[in-house]
Amino acid sequence: MDVIGMLNLDEMAHGLAGMTMFPYFDTAHYVVSVMALREQSGVLELSRRSPFACWFSSMLFCFGGAVLSGLMMAEPPIAPLSNSTNVLLASLIWYLVFYCPWDLLYSCAALLPFRLVLSGMKEVTRTWKVLGGVSQASIKYQDSLLVMIAIGWAKGAGGGLIANFEQLVRGVWKPETNELLKMSYPTKITLIGAVMFSLQHTSYLPLQKHHLMLIYTVFNVVNKARIIITGSSTSPFALLESVIYKTLFAGSSSSSSSSSSSPYTALSSDGKKPVAIDNGNTSANKKKPSSSSTPTKESGERRSQALASPTRGKREDQRSAKTKEQEEDSSCKKTD
Amino acid sequence: MDVIGMLNLDEMAHGLAGMTMFPYFDTAHYVVSVMALREQSGVLELSRRSPFACWFSSMLFCFGGAVLSGLMMAEPPIAPLSNSTNVLLASLIWYLVFYCPWDLLYSCAALLPFRLVLSGMKEVTRTWKVLGGVSQASIKYQDSLLVMIAIGWAKGAGGGLIANFEQLVRGVWKPETNELLKMSYPTKITLIGAVMFSLQHTSYLPLQKHHLMLIYTVFNVVNKARIIITGSSTSPFALLESVIYKTLFAGSSSSSSSSSSSPYTALSSDGKKPVAIDNGNTSANKKKPSSSSTPTKESGERRSQALASPTRGKREDQRSAKTKEQEEDSSCKKTD
Amino acid sequence: MDVIGMLNLDEMAHGLAGMTMFPYFDTAHYVVSVMALREQSGVLELSRRSPFACWFSSMLFCFGGAVLSGLMMAEPPIAPLSNSTNVLLASLIWYLVFYCPWDLLYSCAALLPFRLVLSGMKEVTRTWKVLGGVSQASIKYQDSLLVMIAIGWAKGAGGGLIANFEQLVRGVWKPETNELLKMSYPTKITLIGAVMFSLQHTSYLPLQKHHLMLIYTVFNVVNKARIIITGSSTSPFALLESVIYKTLFAGSSSSSSSSSSSPYTALSSDGKKPVAIDNGNTSANKKKPSSSSTPTKESGERRSQALASPTRGKREDQRSAKTKEQEEDSSCKKTD
Repeated sequence: MDVIGMLNLDEMAHGLAGMTMFPYFDTAHYVVSVMALREQSGVLELSRRSPFACWFSSMLFCFGGAVLSGLMMAEPPIAPLSNSTNVLLASLIWYLVFYCPWDLLYSCAALLPFRLVLSGMKEVTRTWKVLGGVSQASIKYQDSLLVMIAIGWAKGAGGGLIANFEQLVRGVWKPETNELLKMSYPTKITLIGAVMFSLQHTSYLPLQKHHLMLIYTVFNVVNKARIIITGSSTSPFALLESVIYKTLFAGSSSSSSSSSSSPYTALSSDGKKPVAIDNGNTSANKKKPSSSSTPTKESGERRSQALASPTRGKREDQRSAKTKEQEEDSSCKKTD
Repeated sequence: MDVIGMLNLDEMAHGLAGMTMFPYFDTAHYVVSVMALREQSGVLELSRRSPFACWFSSMLFCFGGAVLSGLMMAEPPIAPLSNSTNVLLASLIWYLVFYCPWDLLYSCAALLPFRLVLSGMKEVTRTWKVLGGVSQASIKYQDSLLVMIAIGWAKGAGGGLIANFEQLVRGVWKPETNELLKMSYPTKITLIGAVMFSLQHTSYLPLQKHHLMLIYTVFNVVNKARIIITGSSTSPFALLESVIYKTLFAGSSSSSSSSSSSPYTALSSDGKKPVAIDNGNTSANKKKPSSSSTPTKESGERRSQALASPTRGKREDQRSAKTKEQEEDSSCKKTD
Repeated sequence: MDVIGMLNLDEMAHGLAGMTMFPYFDTAHYVVSVMALREQSGVLELSRRSPFACWFSSMLFCFGGAVLSGLMMAEPPIAPLSNSTNVLLASLIWYLVFYCPWDLLYSCAALLPFRLVLSGMKEVTRTWKVLGGVSQASIKYQDSLLVMIAIGWAKGAGGGLIANFEQLVRGVWKPETNELLKMSYPTKITLIGAVMFSLQHTSYLPLQKHHLMLIYTVFNVVNKARIIITGSSTSPFALLESVIYKTLFAGSSSSSSSSSSSPYTALSSDGKKPVAIDNGNTSANKKKPSSSSTPTKESGERRSQALASPTRGKREDQRSAKTKEQEEDSSCKKTD
């Protein structure tokens, strides 16, 4: 684009495209991912009870995208393990985050300035992963936009997409929720990135690759910083999603008796709380399916609360809005 | 066979073998599959709450066989997504079944005449899928009958075989039941087809392929029509299964204290209700494991009730038979 | 090693390395595996209710390692099914173990002398499987020690590693426990074997392959015989594991509020009972996560109780120790 060129950002874009993720950005990704795992309920206790399961979970947090995209492309999901340097680095970080004397690494990395920098660097790796997935898919499926999107998405957000199975490794089973039912903000932004990079790859999007990489990366880093600093995880796409939903998916009154139970009517003040997800596990039904305690994965961020908030009556709206803001503030600072 | 040739059905067999499934038969398959998904408990509400998870589930209903057979053969399970035309067609049908204004498509397709025709056309696709699976397996494993049967079966009934994981996408988890524990009629008929086509492929069955395709297809279409029109899903193999079971699997009295709990003693008037399946999820145990509410998959048909009905005392037999008939009538008309 | 050579064990090592597993050792492996399955809670009843699911489970017990290693290496997990002779042999054994008139096969094989011999022969197959996995991995990943260890481990103990999914086939779901959370003795010894064979393959371990095979096999056979005869499954590595744990994974007091809940403090008389594994399935929480009733897989042995026993106060130690010994005695004789 001429605008970017005029601003001399073209050089910056080329510089970004030429960067290597190893070792600094990869390290940041591992640190933020393992910290996100640690901040989940019961994991610290698990690390004392079963270090091996804790390590395995951490590796899934760090390399989940590569594992999932490998499975989808019928390439060995064990392949990430062959990259010994990265695995050893991730294992070392896992060890320091969980077992460092005086909890040194975690305590430092959790301080706001460090968390900001590390999370920003992690967002840079997101671009590389999505792009890597799109390129990987385009080798076998040159003309298939859908496959490129799927693989790019899996590679960038695979950790979150396989959350149920990562939790199973830890002895946790929460079938009532998953990233497809309730997409967290990192998963959404990765999907958007996968779509854009696939459109660019197939020449539908008239943008050069390194320019798109710059735009996408800057957007992610800035948004991530906003989420961490303000503590608010309001999705920048909330309005757009609401419009799309109301236009396409509200359905007719004859087929829908629960159109008011959509999470996308958050912007309207009417509506009722959605019914609990129907599943065979009645005891698990007691857990709030839209709870903000469900962790996010590789990107180490919380689900976008504003989008996911169930609809309520006006009084409940205000009360729950205040409660949710408090929840978001505390969990945003914790889990990032 | 000379009989078929004399009846000039040879031409019909050749004609059938030469047909292409796209677009009409594939469309019928997608419509019936998505309707079967919609008729499951909680799915309509899911479609309003999480359209993406609903779409993903629909795609698993439509392409589950290809995904499963791909996984088993170490071929990319993402491959069906590369067939953009079929995916877009299936997605369009999904959208119309769930969100069509005035619920037009679903209401029409649910009318008996249309349901009959669509289901019959879907049965034609079953033949193609089983045959496709057997051929796919025979490329890598020319002499392995078992692999051909397994892949043919997976390709034809894969949607039902992966039901637990398709339900997991929707936040539903019912570990106490699956198609291996309690095979529904569509899964059984697909297995029989896979066996026959594999035996024909390895020349153990002295029948030409297009003749076998005709016989199998006609049998499936006629049986399907019978099930829809009469509302009774009594398996035509019930007697044979019962005989095989009693001969081979009743076991000795010293090792079996529960031979009377077999579902295959349905033809005898004695016997007790089978004990609940042992599993670690006590809350799920409260659900009837042999409930007829468990949905069927790609073929969009209910489980064969007659075979699955637990044994009861004479009074219970009559009472439960009446209740089951009523259940079957209502669910047969609903889910098909 | 000169010592082995001097003892003329070199010939024995070569002889062992040249043996074929089929048919006698494979038969022993199938018999012990299917017996271990049969001895699990609810399986005998399952065999009457759903022979197909029972057969499928047995095949996973017998070939689980090959299936898992195939999945990890992106090779067809269906491949074991192509080995028709082995599958038919395993199926025949499955049939005789579950449905033999007068329960002849099971009753004989369960007698101590036969169980000893069969279990010993099964241990011999473990060596072959681990070695096979390491070799399989070294073809694609010549320099990757981690991949060789992972594939060798999966091939040797895959049945146990996929236990959750094998149980799902039977309608059982126990997410609170798995082999990564609480490694059973067979899984541990297989992992150690995988490490040793990988180190030998990459020349880090200065030992010839056939010598290592002899040492590993003899160790396993002798230990297995000890477990069966004495009824005690105390791991020979308990002390070493405890030392490693205390040195590396006890963590600092500031980060660990539950270091006393480690299973590795078994050798100390202080400590509290570990908290139940945190998971989303509250009803499953009522099951003891460290129960000895959880079955083991391909090797057909119980979890190592001594290592897994939770820490208790002194009085509780003595009382529970007696209870555990009784449990171990009974289950050791049952499940082997």
